[in-house]
Amino acid sequence: MKNTTVTAPKGFLAAGISCGIKISGKKDIGFIACPTGAKAAGVFTTNKVVSAAVTVCKQHIKTGNAEAIVANAGIANACTGKLGLKNAEAMCQTAAQLIDAKANQVLIASTGIIGHQLPMDKISRGIILAAAQLSSSQKTGNDFAQAIMTTDTRCKQAFRTIVIGSAKISIAGTAKGAGMVGPNMATTLCFITTDVDITKPLLQKALKDAVGNSLNKLTVDGHQSTNDTAIILASGLAGNKPIAKADSQYNKFAAALAALTTDLAKQMALDAEGATRMFTIVVNGAASKTDAAKAARAVANYDLVKCAIHGGDPNWGRIICAVGSCGVKINLNKLSCSIGNTAVFKNGQPVKFDPKKVSKIITQKEHTITVNLGAGKLSDFCYGCDLSKEYVTINADYHT
Amino acid sequence: MKNTTVTAPKGFLAAGISCGIKISGKKDIGFIACPTGAKAAGVFTTNKVVSAAVTVCKQHIKTGNAEAIVANAGIANACTGKLGLKNAEAMCQTAAQLIDAKANQVLIASTGIIGHQLPMDKISRGIILAAAQLSSSQKTGNDFAQAIMTTDTRCKQAFRTIVIGSAKISIAGTAKGAGMVGPNMATTLCFITTDVDITKPLLQKALKDAVGNSLNKLTVDGHQSTNDTAIILASGLAGNKPIAKADSQYNKFAAALAALTTDLAKQMALDAEGATRMFTIVVNGAASKTDAAKAARAVANYDLVKCAIHGGDPNWGRIICAVGSCGVKINLNKLSCSIGNTAVFKNGQPVKFDPKKVSKIITQKEHTITVNLGAGKLSDFCYGCDLSKEYVTINADYHT
Repeated sequence: MKNTTVTAPKGFLAAGISCGIKISGKKDIGFIACPTGAKAAGVFTTNKVVSAAVTVCKQHIKTGNAEAIVANAGIANACTGKLGLKNAEAMCQTAAQLIDAKANQVLIASTGIIGHQLPMDKISRGIILAAAQLSSSQKTGNDFAQAIMTTDTRCKQAFRTIVIGSAKISIAGTAKGAGMVGPNMATTLCFITTDVDITKPLLQKALKDAVGNSLNKLTVDGHQSTNDTAIILASGLAGNKPIAKADSQYNKFAAALAALTTDLAKQMALDAEGATRMFTIVVNGAASKTDAAKAARAVANYDLVKCAIHGGDPNWGRIICAVGSCGVKINLNKLSCSIGNTAVFKNGQPVKFDPKKVSKIITQKEHTITVNLGAGKLSDFCYGCDLSKEYVTINADYHT
Repeated sequence: MKNTTVTAPKGFLAAGISCGIKISGKKDIGFIACPTGAKAAGVFTTNKVVSAAVTVCKQHIKTGNAEAIVANAGIANACTGKLGLKNAEAMCQTAAQLIDAKANQVLIASTGIIGHQLPMDKISRGIILAAAQLSSSQKTGNDFAQAIMTTDTRCKQAFRTIVIGSAKISIAGTAKGAGMVGPNMATTLCFITTDVDITKPLLQKALKDAVGNSLNKLTVDGHQSTNDTAIILASGLAGNKPIAKADSQYNKFAAALAALTTDLAKQMALDAEGATRMFTIVVNGAASKTDAAKAARAVANYDLVKCAIHGGDPNWGRIICAVGSCGVKINLNKLSCSIGNTAVFKNGQPVKFDPKKVSKIITQKEHTITVNLGAGKLSDFCYGCDLSKEYVTINADYHT
C-alpha cells in the first residue's frame, strides 16, 4: 500500500510511541523530523489563555525554519504557569539534542486536559524512545497520527499530490480533534508535511488561507481550545522550480493544500465526540461576510439544532431562531431556509413540506442547510455535527 | 392552604384549560383577567425574529393598561408570516369580547414549536372555555401556571408580600421555561400580578430591573427564544398610598419583585431540560460590567463546563478556557478561579486541591463558581445548569 502519511513527502521521518501519559497505554508522544531542515509556517488559537506549548511554538516558528515537531497527547500543558513554560522548553531541548539541532528549531504541541503539569520524566524518556524510532516508513507515519489522538476514535490523515513542471509534489497531513472544537482559528492540532520548494511568506499564506476555509469553518461545540495549532513543514526536496510568487503554480499548491485541510476538517466533524453525522450550514444574502460567517456559526453551534439533527427532527424553527438571536442584519420579509433542496421557510412565511422526506435528508451522513438572510449579497459557511447523548457521556467524566 | 398563585393579589381572576394543542391532553390555554383594569408593563425578547404574539403584545402594552392576558402553550406562533399575525390578533379579539374589553386591552403570549400555525378553531373554543372558568380561586391560579408549561416538569410559582403604610401588598408570579433559555432579555414566559398602586413608569422600571437581575441572568442553553415575554399587571386595589416616585416605598416594592423573579429564575434553572443541578457563575475583577457579564455567560453556556458539572468532574481548565475565548480583557498573571470556597487556579498558576472535595461541591443542588479576571474592579453573575443526556433526549424528538 502506498505511503500517504506524514512520512510520504521527501525528507520526513516520524515516530509515535507510548510514554505513559495515557492511562490506556496508547501512544501519546509523536515526533516528526526533517534532517535537512524545513521551512515552517503555523497558525494558532486566538484564545487569550494559551498553553505553554503554544507560547513556545509561536516563539520558535518566528525563524521560519524547523527541523522537528514534538507533540504529546493526554495533557494540554495549559494553565500551568511558569513550570509549564519551563517544561515546554525542556521538551524542545531534549528533542533538539537527539537530532543535533538548536532548541528553537523544534516546534511543539500539546493536547489533553488543562491545568495539569506534564510528567517530565515520562515525557523525556518518551522523546528519547520516539527519536530512536524515527523512520520514513508508512508505519511510523501512522504511529505519529495515532499519538496525537485524545477522544478521537480514529486517526485523521489526508494526502494530495500535484505536479509542477516535471516535479511530483506530495502533501500529507494529520489532525486530531473531537471536542473543544470551535472555529476562528486553527482548530485542534494539525500537522502537515510537504516536499514543495516554496518561499516562507507563500507557505504561511497558503496555510492561513487553507485553514481559514476548512479547520476554521468547523465547530463541534463552539469551544476554542487553549492549544489549537496547525503547522506545515516544507522540505523543498521535490525538485520543483521554487514557488516565489502567487502565480498559477502557487495556486495549484494552495488549492491542493486547501483540499487536504478540508478533507481533515470533514473527518473531524464525522468523528466529533458523540457525533453520528455532519452538516454544512451555508448562509447567503448577508449584508457582510462577517454577518454570513456569524450566522452560519450560530446555527452550527445551536444545541437545539444539533439535537434536532441527531433525532432526525425537521424542526427548522430552531434554525431561524438561532439566526435571529445572533445579531446579524436580517430582512424578515426575505428570510428563507432550505434543508437539502427542500424549502421549509420562504420570504418570512412557512412552506408546507413532507417532514419524512426532510427527516431522511438530515439523517444522511452529510447534508447542507441553506439560510438566506435577504439582507445583502454575501455568503459564508460552517461545518457542524449533531449533538448526541454520547457527547455528554464522554465529557461528564473526562477528568476523573 | 393560603392562595399564593396569580389570583392571590386583589382584583385578579385566572383559568387554565386544555384546548387540544398538546397531544397529551394537558392544559394549554391560560387566561388572567383583571375586570377593574390594571396598569401593565412588559419586557420582551431581543431576538430579531419574534413571534406574532410578541409583535401584537408589544403593540397592545403601549397603552400601559390591560384587562387580560391570554397565553397558549404547544405552538409558538413564530415564523408564521401574515396568517400568524392575523391569528394572534384574533386571539385578542375573542378574549376581549368575552370580558367586554377592547382588543388592545388583551395581552397575549405563545410558547411551543416554531413555524406551525395555531389551530384557531381549538384556540377560540379554548379561550371561550377558559373565560367561563375564570375565578379568583387558588385552583384556577394553579391551572394557569400549568397551562403555560411546555417541557417543564413542574410549574413555577412565587409569591411575596410587603406592607406599605397600613396596606398589605401581594405580588404573585408564574413562569415557564426549561429549554431555549438564554439571557439578555426576559427569558421565557413570566406573568406577574400585583395589587400595588403604582405609576406606569415605575411599574415598568421595577419590572425591567427585576428581570435584568434574575431571568436575564439565567441561561440553560444560551438560546434566546423568539417568544420571551415578561408581563406584570398591577390592579392598584391594595389601598396603598400610590407609589409615584423612586422613594423607599418604591424600593421596598422593587426589592420584593426582584426577589420574586429571582425565585422564579432559580426554579427554572433547577427544572431546565435534563438538568440535575444549578450553579451561579460570579465574575469579579473585570475591566467593565459588560466584560463581567460576557465572561459569566460564556462559562455558564460552555457545554464542556456543563458536562463536567453534570459528571461531578472538577475540570476547572474548561472554565478558564471559556473565559479566555470569550473576548474579554484578562490579566493572565492575576487570573484566578474558585469552586465554592476552594481555590483551583490563582494568579495564573494551578493550585493543588482535593478533587473529591470539589467534586462534592459541584454535585450539590446549587453551587457557586467564582472567576477573577484580574483586569479591573467590576462584577456580574449568571445562573446556569448542568448538561445531561436527558437534554439531548428531550430535544432530539420534540417535533415529530
